[in-house]
Amino acid sequence: MAGTDRSRGTRAHASDVLAPVVVLVEPQLGENIGTAARAMLNFGLTEMRLVRPRDGWPSEKALSASSGAVEVIEGARLFETTAEAVADLETVYATTARPRDMIKTVLTPAEAGTEIGRRGREDVRCGVLFGPERFGLSNDDVALADAIIAFPCNPAFASFNLAMAVLVIGYEWFKQADHTPERELVQGRTRPATKDELIGFFEHLERELDACGFLRVVEKRPSMVRNIRNIFQRAELTEQEVRTLRGIVAGLATHPRRPQSPQSPENGGKGAD
Amino acid sequence: MAGTDRSRGTRAHASDVLAPVVVLVEPQLGENIGTAARAMLNFGLTEMRLVRPRDGWPSEKALSASSGAVEVIEGARLFETTAEAVADLETVYATTARPRDMIKTVLTPAEAGTEIGRRGREDVRCGVLFGPERFGLSNDDVALADAIIAFPCNPAFASFNLAMAVLVIGYEWFKQADHTPERELVQGRTRPATKDELIGFFEHLERELDACGFLRVVEKRPSMVRNIRNIFQRAELTEQEVRTLRGIVAGLATHPRRPQSPQSPENGGKGAD
Repeated sequence: MAGTDRSRGTRAHASDVLAPVVVLVEPQLGENIGTAARAMLNFGLTEMRLVRPRDGWPSEKALSASSGAVEVIEGARLFETTAEAVADLETVYATTARPRDMIKTVLTPAEAGTEIGRRGREDVRCGVLFGPERFGLSNDDVALADAIIAFPCNPAFASFNLAMAVLVIGYEWFKQADHTPERELVQGRTRPATKDELIGFFEHLERELDACGFLRVVEKRPSMVRNIRNIFQRAELTEQEVRTLRGIVAGLATHPRRPQSPQSPENGGKGAD
Repeated sequence: MAGTDRSRGTRAHASDVLAPVVVLVEPQLGENIGTAARAMLNFGLTEMRLVRPRDGWPSEKALSASSGAVEVIEGARLFETTAEAVADLETVYATTARPRDMIKTVLTPAEAGTEIGRRGREDVRCGVLFGPERFGLSNDDVALADAIIAFPCNPAFASFNLAMAVLVIGYEWFKQADHTPERELVQGRTRPATKDELIGFFEHLERELDACGFLRVVEKRPSMVRNIRNIFQRAELTEQEVRTLRGIVAGLATHPRRPQSPQSPENGGKGAD
């Protein structure tokens, strides 16, 4: 999806906290390293470490697949062993799909994101280990970690793409510090209509519906009015939209095709019960 | 990551609810359709719809990139317009990165996942629209949707891979119905140690530390004992681990290298304050 605004600083909201390091252990395909780098930068992660990438390093394929996440690829550091790659870190997480026969705390990605965020604010250096595409982390690498992160997923199709696993961790880490409201009505330069404006519109509409005969059945009128009002109440209208609707009503009401008698039965109370 | 267990049914926990349909509008690369299918199936989504895929359909590249998500690829349906692709759906969401000049509810992926889950349980048919890789959805396609889903991400690098966007939605949808505990100590076939076992170990260790002279400074002994006990309390030991630790203590205490005098100063209370 488009939408990058390069004038805004990388690392977003998280610039005041330590971001986790992403450690790819024996990644097999340069392309996956590149897409992982892109996923990292999508969520403001910039520090990648590589343990024995199978196809060598640097990798043209990684650079090209990163779709512009050049700073992550060019800043990636190479290590011979996982132990060396995590040596300066204080808390290490191992991502796994398979359950391991190991006595270790297992976290969801969401809980891990929250914990890594909290530790980052306390200046604790965290890292997350990701295993080779085909096999996942070895048990020895998992044993280097303080906790396991297990991905909730379809047990019948649990084979995650490497970059997808990186993305979920980056996403959950970014999310814990993100203050975007869960739900928001975006209204641009307008504002929500006041109840006064809304009622003004209702009365305008009902006057015209009375005039055209739509509301002529007296005993049904109160419930029809309520139903119509509810439709527009639900729409969370803006001030601008109320003016638009009043224009629509006025336009329809004065339309040349209106010579029909107001009492004409074809015009009757359809669809408003 | 490895770990697929094909003996367990697809759709996982969600089989009793309607899953959302994934609608890819004018996807450009067959490969991205394939990786999107894989991401879908990772979270038990199986229904894909394609609006005018640029490189034609069926696509060998899509099938190969799906890494085995064949049921998604082979079941994908083709449409000429977005309106036709969503015609039978009741609630439609449009994913966007860029803010749009449109008065519409904007949801986070988490909130959307929760909402789609709730609607699915009420048998409401939901769909999520994803735009072409390079441009995102057109404003006309966004206008077909009931709400927008916007991804929280690094504003300086907001260009999401198509499959990654699909993954985030699938992940959040799956998560809302997933009851995995946020944090769990996996203990295999053993069980947490009882306090009695733990205290038995403490007393064993302290007897040996008394014997070897490590706790010989009388005024420091109470705080040293507390500090040592705290180390092992924090470790959430299992019954098996307590036995292992008792074996370690017994082993060290009877080690041949122990001829040193219990009162020897080199042996004194280091590191336990």
